[in-house]
Amino acid sequence: MLSGNQIKYINSLKLGKFRNIHQAFIAESPKLVNDLLDSTFIVRMIFATKQWLEINNEDPRLNKIDLFEISEKELKKISLLKTPNQVLAVTGIPVYKFNINILQKNLILVLDDIRDPGNMGTIIRTANWFGIRHIVCSRESVDVYNPKVIQSTMGSIARVRIYYKDLAVFLQEVPDEIKVYGTVLHGRNIYKEKLAKHGIIIIGNESRGISKELLPYITGHLSIPSWESKAESLNASVAAAIVISEFRRI
Amino acid sequence: MLSGNQIKYINSLKLGKFRNIHQAFIAESPKLVNDLLDSTFIVRMIFATKQWLEINNEDPRLNKIDLFEISEKELKKISLLKTPNQVLAVTGIPVYKFNINILQKNLILVLDDIRDPGNMGTIIRTANWFGIRHIVCSRESVDVYNPKVIQSTMGSIARVRIYYKDLAVFLQEVPDEIKVYGTVLHGRNIYKEKLAKHGIIIIGNESRGISKELLPYITGHLSIPSWESKAESLNASVAAAIVISEFRRI
Repeated sequence: MLSGNQIKYINSLKLGKFRNIHQAFIAESPKLVNDLLDSTFIVRMIFATKQWLEINNEDPRLNKIDLFEISEKELKKISLLKTPNQVLAVTGIPVYKFNINILQKNLILVLDDIRDPGNMGTIIRTANWFGIRHIVCSRESVDVYNPKVIQSTMGSIARVRIYYKDLAVFLQEVPDEIKVYGTVLHGRNIYKEKLAKHGIIIIGNESRGISKELLPYITGHLSIPSWESKAESLNASVAAAIVISEFRRI
Repeated sequence: MLSGNQIKYINSLKLGKFRNIHQAFIAESPKLVNDLLDSTFIVRMIFATKQWLEINNEDPRLNKIDLFEISEKELKKISLLKTPNQVLAVTGIPVYKFNINILQKNLILVLDDIRDPGNMGTIIRTANWFGIRHIVCSRESVDVYNPKVIQSTMGSIARVRIYYKDLAVFLQEVPDEIKVYGTVLHGRNIYKEKLAKHGIIIIGNESRGISKELLPYITGHLSIPSWESKAESLNASVAAAIVISEFRRI
C-alpha cells in the first residue's frame, strides 16, 4: 500500500529543492536498485511490486531497509519511466570529501557546466566503463541526482564518486606536477600526444566549451581533429568518450 | 502570416506517416536551415521571423523558395523547440541509391535498429565529424527525418547520406574483400587491431546489440575493453564514437 504522504514525498524528490532538503534521490528498475544495494550508498526505502519482492525475498542486503509492496498501478503513480519497472528506491545522497592526493594515482574528470541530464548520465556511465572513479562538477552543472541523470547512468552512479565544487578554486589547489587536460580550439592532435596516466580531464559545456576562467589552468591543450570542415562540433558526451578512450587505450 | 492550413501541414510533418505522404521534413534554427540551404537538399518553404528575413534578405539561395514572414507568436505554434529560434524550414526528403562501389573507397556505418532519436542524431553528427558520408539504417531504426533526430544532428544531416535497407539483404551483397566490423562480446581488443581504412562498421541496437541474423556477416569482431567488471555497457552513440575514432585516428 502506498499512502498519500508517501506519494507526495517521492514526487517531491523529483525536484532539486526537495532532494536538498531530504538529502535523498530516487532510482528505478531492478538493475539500478541492485547496483545501489551493492554499493556504499544507503538505500532508505524500497517500493516494489510483488514480482520483485518474491525474487529478492531473502536478499540479506534488504534487512535494514523499509520495504513496501505496491501494485503496478501504484508504481505508475510514483514512477517517471514510460514503462515502470518493478521497483523504485529512495536512497541517501552520499557526501564525499575530495582528498587532493587522489590526483597522484587517478585519472579524474572535471565537468564544466554540463547542463543536459542525458549527457551527464552518459558521461558518468562512460567514466565508469573506463575505470574513472572521481568526477568533480561545477556548481552550475545539472544535478546528478536528478532522476533523468540517475536512470541514464544505468547504475554507474553507484560506482563513481561525484563532487560539486567551485572549479576555479579547485584547480588552483591542484599540485603543479599534475597534468590538466582540456579540449580547446587549436589544441594539439590528441591522437599524437603522449598522454599522462594520471591527472585531470576537463570537459566543457555543451554550447560554449571550457569557460574562459578555467583556460589558464590547462597544461595539456588537446583537440579531436575533424575530417569535415563544416562539422562544427561533437556532442559533449561523445567528445568526452573519445578523449577518455584515448587516455585508456593500451 | 500563418494560415490554419499551414499550421496543420507543418504539425503533420512531426509524424512519420505524413512525412512519408509529403516526402518532407521540418528543421529549425538558423544554423540548421543554413546547412540545408548549403546542401543538395531541396528546401521547399521557410517560415521565419522578421529578424531572420532581414539578415538573409539578399541570400541568392532563397530565390526559388517560398518565404513566409511570421511573428514570434506564430513561430511558437509550429516550433518543437523549448525556445523557438527564428526560422523553420520544410525540406524534401532526399532519395539516394546506394552504389555498392562506394564500399571500395569509403568507411560506412550500418545501424542495426537504433531506436532513440537522440542517439541517432548524435551518431550522424559524429559520423560527419569523422568524414563518414554514408549510413545504412535497418528499417526498424528510428526515422532520421523525425524532428528530434534532425535537431540533434546539429546540421550534419545535410552532409551525410542516409539509406534504409533490409540489412541482411544488404550485407549479403557486400563483396568478400570488404571488411565488415562489429562490436561483439569477446571481440578482439579494438585498440590492438589493425583496422582497414575502408569497409563497414555495424552499430548494434541500444539494448540487445547487433542482431543474431547479422552476426554471420561480421569478419572483424571487435570489443572496447572495460576497466570495471560491473559496468555493463556503453551508450550506443558513445560506443559508436569510440569505434569510429579508432578507425580515424592517425
